[in-house]
Amino acid sequence: MNDAAPPSLLPDFAAVLAAAARIAPLAHVTPVLRSRSLDTLAGCELHFKGEHLQRTGSFKFRGACNAIWSLSDADAARGVVTHSSGNHGAALALAARTRGIACHVVVPEGVVASKLAAIAAYGATLHHCAPSIAAREALCGQVQRATGAELVHPYTDTRVIAGQGTATLELLANGTAFDALVVPVGGGGLASGTAIAAAALAPATRLFLAEPSGAAETWASLQRGERVTDFVPDTICDGLRGTLGAPNFTVLQQHRAEVLTVDDAATVAAMRLLWQRSKQLVEPSSAVALAAVLGHPDRFAGQRVGLVLSGGNVDLDALPALFARG
Amino acid sequence: MNDAAPPSLLPDFAAVLAAAARIAPLAHVTPVLRSRSLDTLAGCELHFKGEHLQRTGSFKFRGACNAIWSLSDADAARGVVTHSSGNHGAALALAARTRGIACHVVVPEGVVASKLAAIAAYGATLHHCAPSIAAREALCGQVQRATGAELVHPYTDTRVIAGQGTATLELLANGTAFDALVVPVGGGGLASGTAIAAAALAPATRLFLAEPSGAAETWASLQRGERVTDFVPDTICDGLRGTLGAPNFTVLQQHRAEVLTVDDAATVAAMRLLWQRSKQLVEPSSAVALAAVLGHPDRFAGQRVGLVLSGGNVDLDALPALFARG
Repeated sequence: MNDAAPPSLLPDFAAVLAAAARIAPLAHVTPVLRSRSLDTLAGCELHFKGEHLQRTGSFKFRGACNAIWSLSDADAARGVVTHSSGNHGAALALAARTRGIACHVVVPEGVVASKLAAIAAYGATLHHCAPSIAAREALCGQVQRATGAELVHPYTDTRVIAGQGTATLELLANGTAFDALVVPVGGGGLASGTAIAAAALAPATRLFLAEPSGAAETWASLQRGERVTDFVPDTICDGLRGTLGAPNFTVLQQHRAEVLTVDDAATVAAMRLLWQRSKQLVEPSSAVALAAVLGHPDRFAGQRVGLVLSGGNVDLDALPALFARG
Repeated sequence: MNDAAPPSLLPDFAAVLAAAARIAPLAHVTPVLRSRSLDTLAGCELHFKGEHLQRTGSFKFRGACNAIWSLSDADAARGVVTHSSGNHGAALALAARTRGIACHVVVPEGVVASKLAAIAAYGATLHHCAPSIAAREALCGQVQRATGAELVHPYTDTRVIAGQGTATLELLANGTAFDALVVPVGGGGLASGTAIAAAALAPATRLFLAEPSGAAETWASLQRGERVTDFVPDTICDGLRGTLGAPNFTVLQQHRAEVLTVDDAATVAAMRLLWQRSKQLVEPSSAVALAAVLGHPDRFAGQRVGLVLSGGNVDLDALPALFARG
């Protein structure tokens, strides 16, 4: 799996607009949620884009849907394949089902049980592998050779990046002027899509990336000016353990995104706040964005801040262990 | 505390309409939520009125707000008092704050910690008592005598019943024709308000009351034709442990409401489904309504069903114990 896309393959704003039109019949326009008690607590105005309410429970459906419906009929007939720690797998499975094509998902051991069940329920064929990038890529390659399926990478795929940008397109479309946007960053699909959409629609808005301090290779990469890939993630944010992709790095560097790192304990505390105050069941990988804002009160004081609640797929059986990290 | 209101004091539909006008500047019009995966599971069309998204996290704000703003200025100046297992106390506290008047809340020992904190945070004065009806009423009486505060009973108060009916008013106002409505029943404030609103707007719609089998005195009362008050509640649904009130009984009997009893295990399973599929954090006392529908698939097959998700105030620290009951 080669994720070093040449710059010419980076999606532009036109690609985001095309994605929005392509997925409109299938994806939800998710609500923007407010909470006066969280505003008071944060000392700023928080606008939460509720992607946990997107189909399959995360923003990933946007990119997956755009990729699936961008395929030619001939390519689509051979199906698609991906590897995923969960949400992208479920999203691609459902997106493939909307077109009636085969979907193969390579899942590393240790994936959250509820996410695995969702992938299977959407009708994908599961292929289990060891929890390493090398093992994932090897098995993906095998499936591709055996079936002719097209690879849809979780975050470096141009069509996926463009699709993820549609969440921010919707957030900004009603004309609200944001001082800042804060989105989680793992592999960088959502982050780079957000950067492209925001640059076109709200160039004065600062873009912050919330990243678990136990998987802060995006922070390290942007600091160093080159992509850091040699790290072992250690975070409860299971959606943010991926390694920043090459095209994602390029986009984020171009758009001067700034990373705010967050400890898991702060993420769990923010997640509990979101549950209690907004009654929205968001997963840790979403709550990291609110935690980043709460951790930098001076930076956001009095501002209008847009945050993407990226997903809501929580493994309820693992909650006691999760809360113990808070 | 005398809750045996004479029939002439029962609110009518005009009182519900007046309540709606009175609380409009302060209460949220909550959304009606859908979930295609829950529809598939239930075999019917579910429309969830999201009162967990109401201010203070439950429908109780409607009745409390109507009661507070129905007071004369002279009565309001002396404040209000109530006893509550949680949600009504928080609701009355915030409602009193919207009018700038004092609020005293008698809370029995054993109240969910997060609910107690909410009552205090809204500025009410807490008075602790033993967990018995007699102890609550005695302390309520003491506070009334000492302060001149007006009692706002959690569910027998006419103004409270009328206020609770506004949730169903909103649910029915958009013209959706429901075959059935399903609401939780504890003391009967929501249930009787729902009955009054539904009888006026949708007389052909059946009204079902979801009741924990460990606190099924409403079921027993309607079976026997007279109010059963001699029981000890044993259920995780902390909002549904109250004893059916006299005026509530009268209304429910008049409107031929039918009770469906639900075991706690089924309620916990339904709560987990709501969390996982709709990403909405609802409390057990809300999930009992979905559990009632899932427990009677033949009864609701193919129907259009309106359910009130009554509240979302979950004590997160008690989750492991809660899940163990499922």
